[in-house]
Amino acid sequence: MDLDKLRVNGGRLRHSLEEMAKIGATPAGGVQRLACSDEDGRARDLFVSWLEEIDCTVTVDAMGNIFGRYEGANPALDPVLSGSHIDSQPKGGRFDGILGVMGPLEVLRTLHENGVRPERPIVIVDWTNEEGSRFAPAMVASGVWAGALDLQWAYDRTDINGIKQGDELERIGYKGSVPCESWPVHAYYELHIEQGPRLEATGNIIGAPKGVLCLHWYDIHLEGQANQVGPTPMEGRHDALVAAAEMIVAVRALPASMGGNMVATVGEIHNYPNSRNIIPDGVHFTIDIRSWDDQLALDAFEKLRGQMLGIAEEHGCPIRIEETWKVEHAPFDRGLVQRLLEVGRDLGYPTLRMVSGAGHDASYVNQLAPSAMIFVPSIGGRSHVEVEETSWEDCEAGANALLHCLLRSASEG
Amino acid sequence: MDLDKLRVNGGRLRHSLEEMAKIGATPAGGVQRLACSDEDGRARDLFVSWLEEIDCTVTVDAMGNIFGRYEGANPALDPVLSGSHIDSQPKGGRFDGILGVMGPLEVLRTLHENGVRPERPIVIVDWTNEEGSRFAPAMVASGVWAGALDLQWAYDRTDINGIKQGDELERIGYKGSVPCESWPVHAYYELHIEQGPRLEATGNIIGAPKGVLCLHWYDIHLEGQANQVGPTPMEGRHDALVAAAEMIVAVRALPASMGGNMVATVGEIHNYPNSRNIIPDGVHFTIDIRSWDDQLALDAFEKLRGQMLGIAEEHGCPIRIEETWKVEHAPFDRGLVQRLLEVGRDLGYPTLRMVSGAGHDASYVNQLAPSAMIFVPSIGGRSHVEVEETSWEDCEAGANALLHCLLRSASEG
Repeated sequence: MDLDKLRVNGGRLRHSLEEMAKIGATPAGGVQRLACSDEDGRARDLFVSWLEEIDCTVTVDAMGNIFGRYEGANPALDPVLSGSHIDSQPKGGRFDGILGVMGPLEVLRTLHENGVRPERPIVIVDWTNEEGSRFAPAMVASGVWAGALDLQWAYDRTDINGIKQGDELERIGYKGSVPCESWPVHAYYELHIEQGPRLEATGNIIGAPKGVLCLHWYDIHLEGQANQVGPTPMEGRHDALVAAAEMIVAVRALPASMGGNMVATVGEIHNYPNSRNIIPDGVHFTIDIRSWDDQLALDAFEKLRGQMLGIAEEHGCPIRIEETWKVEHAPFDRGLVQRLLEVGRDLGYPTLRMVSGAGHDASYVNQLAPSAMIFVPSIGGRSHVEVEETSWEDCEAGANALLHCLLRSASEG
Repeated sequence: MDLDKLRVNGGRLRHSLEEMAKIGATPAGGVQRLACSDEDGRARDLFVSWLEEIDCTVTVDAMGNIFGRYEGANPALDPVLSGSHIDSQPKGGRFDGILGVMGPLEVLRTLHENGVRPERPIVIVDWTNEEGSRFAPAMVASGVWAGALDLQWAYDRTDINGIKQGDELERIGYKGSVPCESWPVHAYYELHIEQGPRLEATGNIIGAPKGVLCLHWYDIHLEGQANQVGPTPMEGRHDALVAAAEMIVAVRALPASMGGNMVATVGEIHNYPNSRNIIPDGVHFTIDIRSWDDQLALDAFEKLRGQMLGIAEEHGCPIRIEETWKVEHAPFDRGLVQRLLEVGRDLGYPTLRMVSGAGHDASYVNQLAPSAMIFVPSIGGRSHVEVEETSWEDCEAGANALLHCLLRSASEG
């Protein structure tokens, strides 16, 4: 058969996504399928049963990562890998993660029903706990697999109720016997929704990110002086929340003032004692800075640091700045990104060279093996919300792009 | 005896305050004696036992208000009333409230041991739940007594665990049989710490507030659009926290821009989903505006409203403004305030005519009977915190001022 003409079954892909969306469905049309929860367990069971239907060999490693191997004509060659995650945000959507598991599943179903046996094995993976919403941090299991994180440390991560990740993995029956460690991968592709507005805004169907932006996290702690608001004059107040507000405004203004491509956000704030009639005496807030240009992000924070020290001084509010996490920008494999651009062109899908603003399991795999991601449009740029949406046509296009990327990589000798 | 020479026993007053401070003492030197808690119950028992030692007639009304009546030479005359509250903030200090109960107790002990029997009866009161920290609202029991709040409604107020105030009052044995309703009061005095820095800053010992500032509370609700921070460009974001931050800065700048005597504060903020890497899609914050000039406070909010609407529009964040609570400024009885100024002068205490920035039980009593308050300095202006402090000398001075105010009012035919 002419492999170039091969296409996935869009209806079947949609059906798989809809079946998965029933597991942990929320009333508002989203999904709550937290890592290592009962819902995660049920979705895994379903996924495994589907893998077995197409004669994939299923293994589960010690971090619960599920691998489904579709044997190649030459089993001795390093396999091509593709996957993402089944877990979701607390009030997440029906596409984030799961599309990158159902997509390659649909690819393998298509190969299976057409009797296509590529040279190399193709392995699908469901990475445990990508979201990190129940057990921090995110991408923990691909991190352990890549050797960047420690297995026992990952087991010991606790949720808000003090329950350990390792115990929950065992409870849902997915603490596997195979060691969680990397093995040679010829190429890794991760299909994922964009989670931003660019594809939709530019009328593209496929996004080919050249890599992941750098990520710099900071935690800012401000001290004020608590007092009854009524009897305390404005002069001489040490109001930690006012100081924080001025800093949040400065964070918002930072990217424009730096002139490069950068985003800067305060997503989280805690105010103490947080009482209507008491002047705040403590504020903790976070700063998230991302850019393709690591130095620009560092320079931006140094500028911001100066502004924050000035604001803190002016309000008489002692400040403590914690540099919580720094990840350098990570380029994906140039050859694989180029391959995706070609596949997009060959399939007639408008394809955009872009960047990924968020980290993914691909970030860890990329440290060990040539990796790339395939983005499809997020309607309205929305994600991590119940209204998260991608059209079925775009899901199908993404799976077709994945199909041909996998076929090309798997045919390499 | 020459009543003008009569003075309270400062050492005994200190001892009473120290004994009370043991009930609910916190490791950091403060007090946690929440309304209707076991600690509140134990402190009430001690207070009642002290009242009985000096032959006061004790009655407890249906809201748990404890009245101790020291009989007058003419029992048919309307009594003079003085009191405050035994309950405290969650991490409160050793003076807020309790000084205004131990102060008049010390006055009555002094009259009792000197065999002084004024013309009018003098009644001490402990008002239940002034703070409102466990069961909102504040000043609830003086409010019911004054007819401004409903008894059953007050019983039904619940704490954070859903426990009803009425049930807790019964549990600690202070749901009395006497109806909670006002009776004729000749004059009411409330001794209290200033909870602000003015007396200390001006070197005065006694504060004579001419009344309580107006109090305007607003609740602001902002909607944003949640998105992953990495893939979402700065342009087109609807970040509810940035909009809120600009508004908080505007609130801080408001009093100076209005040119009058006013304070404006944001004490409480809630950010949603409050996640480091998600653009905030909801913020709720409070605004507290106080002034002696009600119209100035209203004009200030109208100015602020315009600013906030502009900020909300600019960020594309729908705003909802709730006008939560409005209390007009409340002048105390001119005659009683004048009496306190004279007593201060006669006793040689530097006395400052001022205003009260905070509401007190006196605010409700003031609606029915001539009322005034007696302030003593708060060291560093601090209150509602464990380090809240007033010198023993100033406590004694306050009790002496109260003694002579009470004697003068109680001698009126």
